[in-house]
Amino acid sequence: MSDVKVLNEKMKRVEDVKIAYIGGGSRNWAWGFMSDLSKDEQISGTVRLYDIDKDAAKGNEIIGNRLTKREDTVGKWHYEAYESLAETLKGVDFVIVSILPGTFDEMESDVHTPERFGVYQSVGDTVGPGGLMRALRTVPMFVEIAEAIKEHAPDAWVINFTNPMTLCTRTLYEIFPEVKAFGNCHEVFGTQKLLASALHDMRGIENVKREEIKVNVFGINHFTWIDRASYNGIDLFPIYKEFVDKYYESGFEDGKTGNWMNDFFDSAQRVKFDLFKRYSLIAAAGDRHLAEFCPGLWYLKNPETVSDWKFALTPVSFRKTQQKDLFDKAQRLIADDEEFEIKETGEEGVRQMKALLGLNDLVTNVNLPNTGQIKNLPLGAIVETNALFQKNSVSPIGAGELPLPILSLVTPHVLNQEMTLQAALRVDKELAFKAFTNDPLMNIPLEEARITFEDMLENTKAYHCFCD
Amino acid sequence: MSDVKVLNEKMKRVEDVKIAYIGGGSRNWAWGFMSDLSKDEQISGTVRLYDIDKDAAKGNEIIGNRLTKREDTVGKWHYEAYESLAETLKGVDFVIVSILPGTFDEMESDVHTPERFGVYQSVGDTVGPGGLMRALRTVPMFVEIAEAIKEHAPDAWVINFTNPMTLCTRTLYEIFPEVKAFGNCHEVFGTQKLLASALHDMRGIENVKREEIKVNVFGINHFTWIDRASYNGIDLFPIYKEFVDKYYESGFEDGKTGNWMNDFFDSAQRVKFDLFKRYSLIAAAGDRHLAEFCPGLWYLKNPETVSDWKFALTPVSFRKTQQKDLFDKAQRLIADDEEFEIKETGEEGVRQMKALLGLNDLVTNVNLPNTGQIKNLPLGAIVETNALFQKNSVSPIGAGELPLPILSLVTPHVLNQEMTLQAALRVDKELAFKAFTNDPLMNIPLEEARITFEDMLENTKAYHCFCD
Amino acid sequence: MSDVKVLNEKMKRVEDVKIAYIGGGSRNWAWGFMSDLSKDEQISGTVRLYDIDKDAAKGNEIIGNRLTKREDTVGKWHYEAYESLAETLKGVDFVIVSILPGTFDEMESDVHTPERFGVYQSVGDTVGPGGLMRALRTVPMFVEIAEAIKEHAPDAWVINFTNPMTLCTRTLYEIFPEVKAFGNCHEVFGTQKLLASALHDMRGIENVKREEIKVNVFGINHFTWIDRASYNGIDLFPIYKEFVDKYYESGFEDGKTGNWMNDFFDSAQRVKFDLFKRYSLIAAAGDRHLAEFCPGLWYLKNPETVSDWKFALTPVSFRKTQQKDLFDKAQRLIADDEEFEIKETGEEGVRQMKALLGLNDLVTNVNLPNTGQIKNLPLGAIVETNALFQKNSVSPIGAGELPLPILSLVTPHVLNQEMTLQAALRVDKELAFKAFTNDPLMNIPLEEARITFEDMLENTKAYHCFCD
Amino acid sequence: MSDVKVLNEKMKRVEDVKIAYIGGGSRNWAWGFMSDLSKDEQISGTVRLYDIDKDAAKGNEIIGNRLTKREDTVGKWHYEAYESLAETLKGVDFVIVSILPGTFDEMESDVHTPERFGVYQSVGDTVGPGGLMRALRTVPMFVEIAEAIKEHAPDAWVINFTNPMTLCTRTLYEIFPEVKAFGNCHEVFGTQKLLASALHDMRGIENVKREEIKVNVFGINHFTWIDRASYNGIDLFPIYKEFVDKYYESGFEDGKTGNWMNDFFDSAQRVKFDLFKRYSLIAAAGDRHLAEFCPGLWYLKNPETVSDWKFALTPVSFRKTQQKDLFDKAQRLIADDEEFEIKETGEEGVRQMKALLGLNDLVTNVNLPNTGQIKNLPLGAIVETNALFQKNSVSPIGAGELPLPILSLVTPHVLNQEMTLQAALRVDKELAFKAFTNDPLMNIPLEEARITFEDMLENTKAYHCFCD
Repeated sequence: MSDVKVLNEKMKRVEDVKIAYIGGGSRNWAWGFMSDLSKDEQISGTVRLYDIDKDAAKGNEIIGNRLTKREDTVGKWHYEAYESLAETLKGVDFVIVSILPGTFDEMESDVHTPERFGVYQSVGDTVGPGGLMRALRTVPMFVEIAEAIKEHAPDAWVINFTNPMTLCTRTLYEIFPEVKAFGNCHEVFGTQKLLASALHDMRGIENVKREEIKVNVFGINHFTWIDRASYNGIDLFPIYKEFVDKYYESGFEDGKTGNWMNDFFDSAQRVKFDLFKRYSLIAAAGDRHLAEFCPGLWYLKNPETVSDWKFALTPVSFRKTQQKDLFDKAQRLIADDEEFEIKETGEEGVRQMKALLGLNDLVTNVNLPNTGQIKNLPLGAIVETNALFQKNSVSPIGAGELPLPILSLVTPHVLNQEMTLQAALRVDKELAFKAFTNDPLMNIPLEEARITFEDMLENTKAYHCFCD
Repeated sequence: MSDVKVLNEKMKRVEDVKIAYIGGGSRNWAWGFMSDLSKDEQISGTVRLYDIDKDAAKGNEIIGNRLTKREDTVGKWHYEAYESLAETLKGVDFVIVSILPGTFDEMESDVHTPERFGVYQSVGDTVGPGGLMRALRTVPMFVEIAEAIKEHAPDAWVINFTNPMTLCTRTLYEIFPEVKAFGNCHEVFGTQKLLASALHDMRGIENVKREEIKVNVFGINHFTWIDRASYNGIDLFPIYKEFVDKYYESGFEDGKTGNWMNDFFDSAQRVKFDLFKRYSLIAAAGDRHLAEFCPGLWYLKNPETVSDWKFALTPVSFRKTQQKDLFDKAQRLIADDEEFEIKETGEEGVRQMKALLGLNDLVTNVNLPNTGQIKNLPLGAIVETNALFQKNSVSPIGAGELPLPILSLVTPHVLNQEMTLQAALRVDKELAFKAFTNDPLMNIPLEEARITFEDMLENTKAYHCFCD
Repeated sequence: MSDVKVLNEKMKRVEDVKIAYIGGGSRNWAWGFMSDLSKDEQISGTVRLYDIDKDAAKGNEIIGNRLTKREDTVGKWHYEAYESLAETLKGVDFVIVSILPGTFDEMESDVHTPERFGVYQSVGDTVGPGGLMRALRTVPMFVEIAEAIKEHAPDAWVINFTNPMTLCTRTLYEIFPEVKAFGNCHEVFGTQKLLASALHDMRGIENVKREEIKVNVFGINHFTWIDRASYNGIDLFPIYKEFVDKYYESGFEDGKTGNWMNDFFDSAQRVKFDLFKRYSLIAAAGDRHLAEFCPGLWYLKNPETVSDWKFALTPVSFRKTQQKDLFDKAQRLIADDEEFEIKETGEEGVRQMKALLGLNDLVTNVNLPNTGQIKNLPLGAIVETNALFQKNSVSPIGAGELPLPILSLVTPHVLNQEMTLQAALRVDKELAFKAFTNDPLMNIPLEEARITFEDMLENTKAYHCFCD
Repeated sequence: MSDVKVLNEKMKRVEDVKIAYIGGGSRNWAWGFMSDLSKDEQISGTVRLYDIDKDAAKGNEIIGNRLTKREDTVGKWHYEAYESLAETLKGVDFVIVSILPGTFDEMESDVHTPERFGVYQSVGDTVGPGGLMRALRTVPMFVEIAEAIKEHAPDAWVINFTNPMTLCTRTLYEIFPEVKAFGNCHEVFGTQKLLASALHDMRGIENVKREEIKVNVFGINHFTWIDRASYNGIDLFPIYKEFVDKYYESGFEDGKTGNWMNDFFDSAQRVKFDLFKRYSLIAAAGDRHLAEFCPGLWYLKNPETVSDWKFALTPVSFRKTQQKDLFDKAQRLIADDEEFEIKETGEEGVRQMKALLGLNDLVTNVNLPNTGQIKNLPLGAIVETNALFQKNSVSPIGAGELPLPILSLVTPHVLNQEMTLQAALRVDKELAFKAFTNDPLMNIPLEEARITFEDMLENTKAYHCFCD
């Protein structure tokens, strides 16, 4: 990492920070990141945008630089689209990786093909048949990225936002063990907000920021758990217990009754409440993710069950519509027909970079190889816990041991993810199929699993080497 | 252990060996053990028979001592029924534990209650809903036994034959960590015999003894695997592969066509062959056991599936009939109306005792706490591998790492067994239910699982404390 | 721990905090602690003073309560001397342990007896022959304390200040594995101050507080090392390197030239500089401590060598004089002939308690059982690293692996301390002697070591059971 | 490994075994190996002799083939000298590595240079300053050998006889982790013979073969320990205790009084007896080796101390004389002026090969990476324990935990050897010096250590890259 370059008397500042953004043509995450950067006055520098969709990267260059010129922004950054991954990486301080592996056509196959035999997925990008397929095409991309980082930016900090989070991060470390990489996910933040809601609802305490909710997080991405939570020294477990008791049947919809029926990304938290009742810890991800890690018959047996638990199966057709809207919006922004709306994302990326530059200390949850922070998961597995960010360092914070019943839910996924990694690296189709059938959502006969597997591979063959 | 007491010039002998037999009223295992003892001329001494069925123990005292008087026996032992566990144990060199936890009425509930919702078990004494219920009533018995051993026979070698093997052995170590205990099972022997059959069938080599088939064994009891097998330097894997290819569809019945349909303990090895095709290692237990460790839909979906795979669901009614026959036979033996038939059991118990007394070295497979003999299973879990038996020592032999796909099948059972142990020790019903629903056979909805669980507890409540 | 009891609008406060102070008659640490408490307005409650010197505890009760009455104090505490350890502990939130194991007569033997055969110790309370002897009499006291905590205050947080730190903390966990204990030491703080001095000396940056120097600490108490240090994003390693180069020969005395010759607790940091030159990491304890962990010929060969390295051998006669002065001062304070001087100690005790009550987050270095925070030291060994303090939790922060050359220096002490613990617990004199001769300071023949050992045991026999 | 090729009815035989002998010009080990091969009728094939001294290899070709022609040999082998390492290795079943790293001139420096400052070594090839220097020149040779094996004979079994055993074996695994290598040493055999002598001396039992003495071995090469020993079921510990008591002062010389004074390789076992008295386990190597692992002041303070302990410092001049004699003998053998004397070496090499070919099972002690066979030494370190040899497999046998006092003696060497490996691989002179000064024999001031280190490097610079 480049050393701190300028440090004013009153305010610490770092200039000339160099960021490589892989997937820099993104019309969602990239815009949010630009927004966050534009609101921070302590750092400035250059963002290099790299994307296989070169037009998209070029578009974001225009959008970004226009943002810098605006008077209402304090963080001034130069954006530049790059055509070569090697050039993008050379000499940077940070690498952001936020890509879509394949298109939504592939995701459509990931999510919906298994429905033929009754296997339903609410997201389909992490575990389950869809998560595995997504991994098979993502791992090779991360092999390429890891090799490029090893060669061109071995000292850079690498922040991954891409799913499947665990396997993307795991691949970076597999290929380049010295990589300074971690993975970011906002699911825990949503749970902190829910705890703030509980505090409001049960105790009348208002305006609590999610960062003020202190939690001990452990597990794997999208299947994290909280065993300690407090706000200003108040233990939140008894409060959450009351809250769950109150809303167990109805769900908690925060004033937006029925929203989960209309918003494909929403839920009424009933899965989370049910897991709390059964396991006594707070499951710390959205219901749509949590449900996918559990045995298929629990929450995803069929659309009626999903409806009973008041969460949504996100159809990929909906994502396609969104994507289309965003594409149109991008054209307007590029043409200056619409003004870019600045709003904080709530993501930690910028705060983490500032901490790594030495501007502040930060404790937040990230995905890192297990070096003992979770005692009873295998060393080397990518796990999600709190970590301490300081100048040029990220140190995992000991989170203890997962309780045995939760360990039993988590471990099969850890093993399956390792198997998926090996299958993807060695292009070992039968190993991939073993991982496929091991998934707890796959309670269908082997023959049906085989048909599904072959179909899904066929549907997505443009993005992997498992066919022919 | 008592030191070697007498050692002749020509032949090594140990006299005055003291053995405590817990479950000494047994009409199956105990008779086999008596038979083996009577045929061995290197050791002699006393067998103390302890059983909660005092008449049965007394009966075996009579049968055993009559055997000793016969001219055709060379191993001369004094049998004596004891009424107190403490007295049975004091000063002994060996403790044999071979008990039936509860009666066949309880086992009937274990095996058949889950069938109501379509969960079938071929044995029902190891894992699955039946294995768990059996464990809940067995663990407390082993707590009592372990405490008695700790107090009265801390230096004795303890040989367990009771199922669920893993949890019985685990309980002994949990309660008395210094215990010198191991668990014996003959399932691997059956697989060695199958390999001998393959050698005969494919290469025409005859009269191979199962001990001559050298194997590297690893896994957990009743779900063990072989990754190296040889006979006189001949690698058996290519031969077994040919054998599986030849008999995959038909099964291998060793001349007894259709026997698996009539003999509730038999199979045509098709499950074993299928696992070999899919995992490339030799599954080393009977098909009826192996099937219970796999996802329920694979081999135990319903009776038709079982029939297709050519193995039997053992009805407990059949065990009851057998038991009745044995009871009648015992009466005849006691009354000297029938002569006891001496035949070698093929079990290792006597050979192991002789090795521990220093009369020979022995390498055989046993169940022991994992101290690293299987690198990727948790330390402390009871695992089955080869071990070296020498004078007063049993040393596990490093077996390597389970391949990842097999590790994925084995690990959930390891965790579930640990959870079952904790549930049994703490009488924690909800923890027991979590283990119950975690089992891969239990792919039924939670509500059905709950009904089954409560029914099974109710049915067996004479033998546990989970019902208030 | 008792839950937060009162929380004002503007300021968070916790009242009714209950603290047990074992060694509460102390005239040094206890007074510092009272001073710190009196200056903090967020917490208040009761301090129970327990000491085998009951008069001393009674005296501190008077001194403490007088302090509370003063108008210039904001932290108002009630002090009360207790006569029974059990009563002292019942229901408390925190337990402070700060005792002197034996008297300075025993310490005189610890430090000076080995000089007969040329073994010199600068402190003699941690490792070396003196540290071992001190441990042999301290461990039984901590066994008693741990048992009392287990019975009377199992949920309290236990803060140990007693040396030998590692073994005191280790004993607490050995006897009561669920204890919520950690050990505090200010040696690292001194190193942070030295880094602040370097920053001033080499870069002219002034008024840097030691807490602002961020460090990654790892090792064992009094032999800790720093591999990352920064101030406001400035990497301190290149600066410290220049500083060491400048002062390597002369030592750094911070304007107090020759002070190390007059002050038995001072040094010119030359040992620290030498270790930096040789190992490239910053040794993070005072030179007097560091020297004792290294082979005896390096820094403690004889008084001339010590003088060359510009640090002091602290004679226990000096400690006795100090003790006398403090006794006299105590009498004056009790009699109100002298006013208690309030000054911040710089210790973390009060800040840690506040963090544990939920009043703030805190990252600081403490001694805890290794759960993986130092990857290449044995699990369970007491190690010193940073930890995150939050509401009712202390979580070790992953510090990485000790570099191999440093690991080679540290590991023998880890093993020796474990051996000392076992020797003390089992009163195994020969095991103690093995630990005694293993110490790197003990490069004298075994016969001389034996004489020294027996003499030291004899000299201190009032406080241990090794002489029958 | 080549599969078993021919197997007769009555007797199992393997023909066409291919052995590569690296260091095949050896006039000691190679002759012994030829001798052993010539006496075994179950295996035959080809031995490829490779040596940097090509004449020596050529000479052994002649000697070996003449042996094959003799009527009194049953094992018929074809010997052939090879000029290229690659060619030597291609397609072989076994690789023997038995080389002298450098000449006896280098060894003369290794052993005698440190004497200038009073550091005495009895052997100087394993640990201590001499062992380290030897390692610095051996490791690169083993890097080359490992790379050649990886490329040309990845499936061959590699048997190392070269010292320093631990580091040679460790290097093979470091460079080629899949290597099927183990290290052989006969020191334990000598201890088994001593136990047989004790059995004779104390109990009058005669003609006990060393293989009949069953032992549990653990530790590192040349510093192994035995905690269980038996003969025909007789516990040898009480017998050895009596034996040690009887001979502690005089030493045990087996009828050859004073031989240790004349034979530079002999001892009166007093070091071994002293270690038994102090540690209660049987140290299982020759006294000359054992002494070098202990603190220098114990047994190697000066020549008088060595004499008191009745063992010899082996001068390298003596080895040179021996070497000269062997060279002359070789010329006579080549010229057929002297007949090769066939006698069994007592080494295990041939028996191990036969076991690996599947001709018999074998339990013997070898050096292997720790996968848990010694629980409290680091995983991956090369340790010496028993292992089970079967068809194409070597499986370490669990040996338990080293007792803490012995662990304290062993661990510093394990760390030092790892440090030496890293230093040799990276040509890191300062790291090598740290390992050098860490050795327990090196209780001299750092300045003297530095002079010694530089001199030793200079003296041996033809064989390493640490100078200039």
